[in-house]
Amino acid sequence: MNQERLNCVLNRLNEIGAEEMLVTEPRAIFWLTGKWVFPGERFLALLIRKNEQPVLFINRLFWFDEEIGVRKVWFSDTDDVLPLVRKELDPEKVLGVDKTMESRFLLPLLETGAAKKVVNSSIAVDEARAVKDLEEQAKMRESSRINDLAMEAFRKLVHEGVTELEISDQTLKIYKSLGASGYSFDPIVSFGANAADPHHMPDETVLKEGDCVLFDIGCVVNDYCSDMTRTFYWKKEPDERVKRIYELVRQANEQAEEMLKPGIPLCDVDAKARDLITAGGYGPQFNHRLGHFIGLADHEYGDVSSANHNLTKTGNFFSIEPGIYLAGDTGVRIEDLVLITENGHEVLNHYPKELTILD
Amino acid sequence: MNQERLNCVLNRLNEIGAEEMLVTEPRAIFWLTGKWVFPGERFLALLIRKNEQPVLFINRLFWFDEEIGVRKVWFSDTDDVLPLVRKELDPEKVLGVDKTMESRFLLPLLETGAAKKVVNSSIAVDEARAVKDLEEQAKMRESSRINDLAMEAFRKLVHEGVTELEISDQTLKIYKSLGASGYSFDPIVSFGANAADPHHMPDETVLKEGDCVLFDIGCVVNDYCSDMTRTFYWKKEPDERVKRIYELVRQANEQAEEMLKPGIPLCDVDAKARDLITAGGYGPQFNHRLGHFIGLADHEYGDVSSANHNLTKTGNFFSIEPGIYLAGDTGVRIEDLVLITENGHEVLNHYPKELTILD
Repeated sequence: MNQERLNCVLNRLNEIGAEEMLVTEPRAIFWLTGKWVFPGERFLALLIRKNEQPVLFINRLFWFDEEIGVRKVWFSDTDDVLPLVRKELDPEKVLGVDKTMESRFLLPLLETGAAKKVVNSSIAVDEARAVKDLEEQAKMRESSRINDLAMEAFRKLVHEGVTELEISDQTLKIYKSLGASGYSFDPIVSFGANAADPHHMPDETVLKEGDCVLFDIGCVVNDYCSDMTRTFYWKKEPDERVKRIYELVRQANEQAEEMLKPGIPLCDVDAKARDLITAGGYGPQFNHRLGHFIGLADHEYGDVSSANHNLTKTGNFFSIEPGIYLAGDTGVRIEDLVLITENGHEVLNHYPKELTILD
Repeated sequence: MNQERLNCVLNRLNEIGAEEMLVTEPRAIFWLTGKWVFPGERFLALLIRKNEQPVLFINRLFWFDEEIGVRKVWFSDTDDVLPLVRKELDPEKVLGVDKTMESRFLLPLLETGAAKKVVNSSIAVDEARAVKDLEEQAKMRESSRINDLAMEAFRKLVHEGVTELEISDQTLKIYKSLGASGYSFDPIVSFGANAADPHHMPDETVLKEGDCVLFDIGCVVNDYCSDMTRTFYWKKEPDERVKRIYELVRQANEQAEEMLKPGIPLCDVDAKARDLITAGGYGPQFNHRLGHFIGLADHEYGDVSSANHNLTKTGNFFSIEPGIYLAGDTGVRIEDLVLITENGHEVLNHYPKELTILD
């Protein structure tokens, strides 16, 4: 049990008005206890509260002996876990649950009066997780360092007649050879008009001269995620119009990064990039938020969007990923991960962003 | 919109006493509408009710034009989706939600009085999905046919000095070359004592003479999942004790399969295998249920366990996977997928189960 992280969550929980909390998100449980359990559809929860040892409800299928600073309540597939949980809860107290707790557990808790009231107290964990400590910062850097190396390896897979799938099928092996344990998300490899869909999945599209080649890639190293996007061009310099949107996106990326330091409203960061793209005439074609927080998961609580008025904090990691998408035509996105430091910021990705022609 | 499936769900919903339902599980939405949307952390829901066109709440990020028989309510990352949903709900009606609906959506619905009552009505969708129609049955067969071919290819990867990871790293490519779109779950490759952990993840363990080699593998073909386990031995015949547990597991697998037809309590199927293993002296070492239902997801609603008194139905697909696990020593599991047919059953996997020595 990481006592510092636990205390941080408990203090915030107190501010929210919740007296105990059931944490069910496996990554949050790992972050607190150092123990990875992936329960699939089975129930897993860590009950935390002030001045008492946390209680871990865990299926015997995931049996382990180690002492991790919790009291373990074991159950099996044929047990009804709800009475076991209710027995540990105080029906006179306000119970917090995390945002992903599922209705199949939540509704019976509510119906059986297991707590005075149930509130979504995810923010207590999420805000704490959004501020990475030094150990986590080192792991985040390492994950992005490997992602930079991977980008260099992946662009070398681009050749005449290749398909998106032929490239993406080779990426996992390369990541593993570089020391990653796996993907942080399935890689996006988009040629030409496919790049106009920000969530395009690699398919049988064959590369053509003049196509853009967009890689949105990330890996997991020591449990921490990376995420970066670069857009290249195959064989031929793009026309002036495409060059202009490329430069707009690059400037939006760089100017948003340059302003970063602690205490900036995240919506202002989004606005910096968005205003520049809008002034260039492509506002509607930048149809997503500027970025998302990242850590043990590739998308964590917190985003860089016009709706988020929270301030940047030292230890925050998020993506800066402006894009312009022209349906049926082409797309550009340039993305780095950044860390907010005491004195400013650190860009985790060092892969060049100049318009690059592959051949 | 698959009207037959929708009607089936609406009828069951009526029996449960829910008048409308928010379906949020992406696979359930695909099963009903034929449209795959993977929203990640973003809200996605299909509102269904008698005599009205379903309403799909969907983020603009996943924009599509096709007509799929729903009214679409689009929103963006900066919109609050809750009022949009509330506007469509009748506060005087009982609202069903699926079992995976998350507290971040469920608690505000409850707090704002969006419905007279909210109940977990997953079973309406889940029971309907558990009975596969002929189109689905054909896809399930094809997925397992490819899985049989994959098992044959994977066992050929076993050689002196290989590690579990070196094998598992090659499996995705082989699956894809056979026509699968990907894994239905990350493959389990376990050597020797690692096989004693039913959920062991491939690591750097090096194969040794006499080790068992357990493959628990599955792929996705045309959106449908396969899942099969075989346990082999490397170079050397196992000792009499291991041979005996292997035969116990094989008999448990085969006898449980042989009894299958419509109308059998699923707990009786579990008991058939479990009693045999218990009589052989290894009851406590068979520490999980006998099987799980499967289809669009590798684990679907329904299992073969002592707690499930429901009866088998024509069109059900599930796994039969007895195992014996000796901690620190070895493990055996033999798993097939089966289909309940009108007159009996069909075993989807044809890969041999006789004790096999690899060399």
